[in-house]
Amino acid sequence: MVTDAQQAAFEAGIKFGSLYHQFAGTPISPDSTRSLETAMADAIENQPFCASVTVEIDDEAVEAAIDHENGYTELTGSLMTVEMRIEYEGVTARTRMEMEDGYPLMKLVSVDD
Amino acid sequence: MVTDAQQAAFEAGIKFGSLYHQFAGTPISPDSTRSLETAMADAIENQPFCASVTVEIDDEAVEAAIDHENGYTELTGSLMTVEMRIEYEGVTARTRMEMEDGYPLMKLVSVDD
Amino acid sequence: MVTDAQQAAFEAGIKFGSLYHQFAGTPISPDSTRSLETAMADAIENQPFCASVTVEIDDEAVEAAIDHENGYTELTGSLMTVEMRIEYEGVTARTRMEMEDGYPLMKLVSVDD
Amino acid sequence: MVTDAQQAAFEAGIKFGSLYHQFAGTPISPDSTRSLETAMADAIENQPFCASVTVEIDDEAVEAAIDHENGYTELTGSLMTVEMRIEYEGVTARTRMEMEDGYPLMKLVSVDD
Repeated sequence: MVTDAQQAAFEAGIKFGSLYHQFAGTPISPDSTRSLETAMADAIENQPFCASVTVEIDDEAVEAAIDHENGYTELTGSLMTVEMRIEYEGVTARTRMEMEDGYPLMKLVSVDD
Repeated sequence: MVTDAQQAAFEAGIKFGSLYHQFAGTPISPDSTRSLETAMADAIENQPFCASVTVEIDDEAVEAAIDHENGYTELTGSLMTVEMRIEYEGVTARTRMEMEDGYPLMKLVSVDD
Repeated sequence: MVTDAQQAAFEAGIKFGSLYHQFAGTPISPDSTRSLETAMADAIENQPFCASVTVEIDDEAVEAAIDHENGYTELTGSLMTVEMRIEYEGVTARTRMEMEDGYPLMKLVSVDD
Repeated sequence: MVTDAQQAAFEAGIKFGSLYHQFAGTPISPDSTRSLETAMADAIENQPFCASVTVEIDDEAVEAAIDHENGYTELTGSLMTVEMRIEYEGVTARTRMEMEDGYPLMKLVSVDD
């Protein structure tokens, strides 16, 4: 009832939802972008079938989002680009989160067996 | 490069990862299981293509997990069963989180167009 | 080295940080504000010394924050008002999160023994 | 109605609740403990009045918690020790999360002006 390609796509979605809802809201400033990128990628790569994760947080966007005396903002989808590669039973699923029309969109880029 | 069935499976995965990592860790006791079930389902049903979500938190498992003087525990996958139905471009994806060999497993049950 | 009043204030802070970082990022729309308010209050009231929690999510602010075709937004501090009463060894601490100069601020309103 | 010492204690509590509920549930294995420790400390140090945060995740405890074929577990209070120093208007509050009777306990260690 479920093909390997569909299962690969499902696994890819799980990782995306996990990454986003685990880390959205994290206090962030230009001083902490690199360590958060690394920790997010390392954490999600622990999950099954997750071959690689890259997270790029946009320092300029973070700086621009800090308009408060506090000196930090909270991580949201509009501040980062995420790419993942899932490998499931010989199927490769590639995903990307990027801005589209001003909103972050989680995209299933390709599913290849 | 991506079929509607694969996209439906991807969307289903996103919802599962979102639900789990948004709400895992929530303080819970038998007094708050019903309201948390409702809020979790309502929250995730807001997401695109998410036709229905049911969350059942096991009161007895919650009670058994509370062995501390504090009187509460934290929500984990082992305390709940979750079912979702995703509708994407005429494709229906069904998912279920349940215990298997003592661990909670997120399953893609079926993808039907 | 720590007075009961200081401990009450510490406990109040824990509850505020917990509530905020557990639930910020939750998908929300006007259809799910009431159930989320109830679940948030019930969850945090499970924690020790937490006598009462009230959460009010501003439906109009939620509606205004939804400008995407998706039909939902994510919970942030600017969409809600929270009040808590902590009781610790006869000391009452009252806290409030409210907007100040356009930003949500967690305030320790009073500590009374 | 609120002394600087009480406010320092409140700020300390906020940071503890934030750290715990932001990062509990993060997928973790011995390969990702160091990067998560760093990111947690850096993130919370962004918050106001937070002078220093140290997070130590216990690799052996993480290893022992992984008994599933998945090869990872989720971060909980029992896997880490956290220390923070809060500086508020000349008052120093020190906090520590450590295991006590088998449960993680957030402690206000001292408040000194």
